[in-house]
Amino acid sequence: VIDLQDQHADFPQPNRILKLARRPVGVPVMTDWKILEEPVRAPMPGECVVAVDHISIDPAMRGWIDDVSSYLPPVRLDQVMRALGVGRVVRSRDDRLPVGTVVQGLLGVQRFAVVNGRWLNSVDESLGSARSHLGVLGQTGLTAYFGLFSVGRPVAGDTVVVSAAAGAVGSIVGQLARLAGCRVIGVAGGPEKCRFVREELGFDEAVDYKSENVTEALSGLCPTGIDVYFDNVGGLILEAALANLALHARVVICGAISQYNATIVSPGPSNLWQLLVKRATMQGFLVIDHTDDFPRARAKLSEWLSRGALLGPETVVQGDVDQFPEALLGLFRGDNVGKLVLSLDVSST
Amino acid sequence: VIDLQDQHADFPQPNRILKLARRPVGVPVMTDWKILEEPVRAPMPGECVVAVDHISIDPAMRGWIDDVSSYLPPVRLDQVMRALGVGRVVRSRDDRLPVGTVVQGLLGVQRFAVVNGRWLNSVDESLGSARSHLGVLGQTGLTAYFGLFSVGRPVAGDTVVVSAAAGAVGSIVGQLARLAGCRVIGVAGGPEKCRFVREELGFDEAVDYKSENVTEALSGLCPTGIDVYFDNVGGLILEAALANLALHARVVICGAISQYNATIVSPGPSNLWQLLVKRATMQGFLVIDHTDDFPRARAKLSEWLSRGALLGPETVVQGDVDQFPEALLGLFRGDNVGKLVLSLDVSST
Repeated sequence: VIDLQDQHADFPQPNRILKLARRPVGVPVMTDWKILEEPVRAPMPGECVVAVDHISIDPAMRGWIDDVSSYLPPVRLDQVMRALGVGRVVRSRDDRLPVGTVVQGLLGVQRFAVVNGRWLNSVDESLGSARSHLGVLGQTGLTAYFGLFSVGRPVAGDTVVVSAAAGAVGSIVGQLARLAGCRVIGVAGGPEKCRFVREELGFDEAVDYKSENVTEALSGLCPTGIDVYFDNVGGLILEAALANLALHARVVICGAISQYNATIVSPGPSNLWQLLVKRATMQGFLVIDHTDDFPRARAKLSEWLSRGALLGPETVVQGDVDQFPEALLGLFRGDNVGKLVLSLDVSST
Repeated sequence: VIDLQDQHADFPQPNRILKLARRPVGVPVMTDWKILEEPVRAPMPGECVVAVDHISIDPAMRGWIDDVSSYLPPVRLDQVMRALGVGRVVRSRDDRLPVGTVVQGLLGVQRFAVVNGRWLNSVDESLGSARSHLGVLGQTGLTAYFGLFSVGRPVAGDTVVVSAAAGAVGSIVGQLARLAGCRVIGVAGGPEKCRFVREELGFDEAVDYKSENVTEALSGLCPTGIDVYFDNVGGLILEAALANLALHARVVICGAISQYNATIVSPGPSNLWQLLVKRATMQGFLVIDHTDDFPRARAKLSEWLSRGALLGPETVVQGDVDQFPEALLGLFRGDNVGKLVLSLDVSST
């Protein structure tokens, strides 16, 4: 047990860190990673040591480890894998974040993170559990909220289609669209996920892309066309949605999980001209452009959550940072329902 | 010579009509068309007989003759080929359009059109020549105007890239973007077209897609990225533009001429995820959604035209309706510079 009173003593536990060993080709394999133990360095003025409790596992991670500059620089080799996480401040040299504060930030896949306090946000557990601040109350829920309402702009009565409907973002998008008075159709893989989005999350309809022709299924289920298509997957399901747009439809490009592990150039939809025929808009967005509005959105999500109008489904992997590579593979296989989180049961000090 | 005083006499000249004989596969060939002579029927109340002077030849025609419902129903077999045209009223049973009025409308590829007056617009020759009402003052110029200003929304200082830059719409788009204070780069096929857009139309730069790597050329010419990409071609040039977008870029989908004659499914851009990384918008539009604003836009275009700030380049094929199939092939080969018009030198009665 760490003596929380002694801020300057050497940290009594080693850190356990998952680092990027080499850049994956296609699906990341075990040997793309390495795990090391290192001492936890003393925090500098303004810094905190955070004991990591929950690590967010996200499709975007696949992009972060390619050697391609994007909205964030690539994770460097021999560096801790970038990850959003929630934890507790166990040493602090930032007066605004005393020891014991529950915080959220880019903590990385490790047991202890030494981070400047300015990159940490304190978590308001009155709104929901610490872990839910990675899911429905975190970037996941906020991505769903801003992607749907700021980019998709549905109005009551609209037909909204969401892909990866049982996934972290998709499961929230569909529920929010229902709350906004829309008819919601989810596209998901397999009968169990389809049942889940219909029966547990209240979607109106679900299409199983593993057993159905998605273009034909959407055509049958959307007789007046799709007003908002919220895309998490790209590829053939995007093409199927484009083939069924309503006039003035909005296509929200939130992710393209079907493309992230491609080792050959993967062609895009062959029917982009549908945007012209339907005078439709396709727009990409990143939730980080909406940070000013996070508190307002989080308050709304929390209110729906607290009165049971919104569920924040989670798949939790318990273990150590060692479980990360397999958990990430599970994400790309679609093992999870809702938000996938790796919860460390080892760093509680 | 028609006796214009005798509205009820039989029409003294036969009509010569180009009809769709069968649906083309790929590039339309001569045997997809047939040419007939038929009597001109007497106009019913509200109708006019229009002697066709100029026929607009447009990429969109390729879509109209496929058996696919789009923003307009397909042209039917054994029917006159749909075309915008300009002509003169030679018989009238619509009091608002007396004999002699110059009119514009969907006159078809024929010498004489019998059309209800409500589908005709009288042409104001004080704004520009009758023929220019198919080009810079017609749907072509209006498409450029609304696509650029209402969808692309450039601001002074923006970098604007336009494909098919020497074509009917592209040549106007680039000039309008220059008038709006933007830096303009055209993508065109061959050194002569590139010279034309730079030296005659005043574009800042031109990229020859036939001899250059467009992705690399745009990267070099757009160090801060492309703010507005106006796409007339789709395919690989769209992909090259997507690879070079600036943050919050707008991609205007006006046409996809590279795809119209495809006989196999032609894949879309493999890098649509750039919309996400750059938080960019891709939007399709049709000029027919902006009809209420046509007079205002046409007045502006005419004013620029009259003071020499805007050129309306045209390629004119002189002849009869028989020249239409070859002229349309020329359009898809890229023979034309500016607006391609078939002017009938036979229907002057």
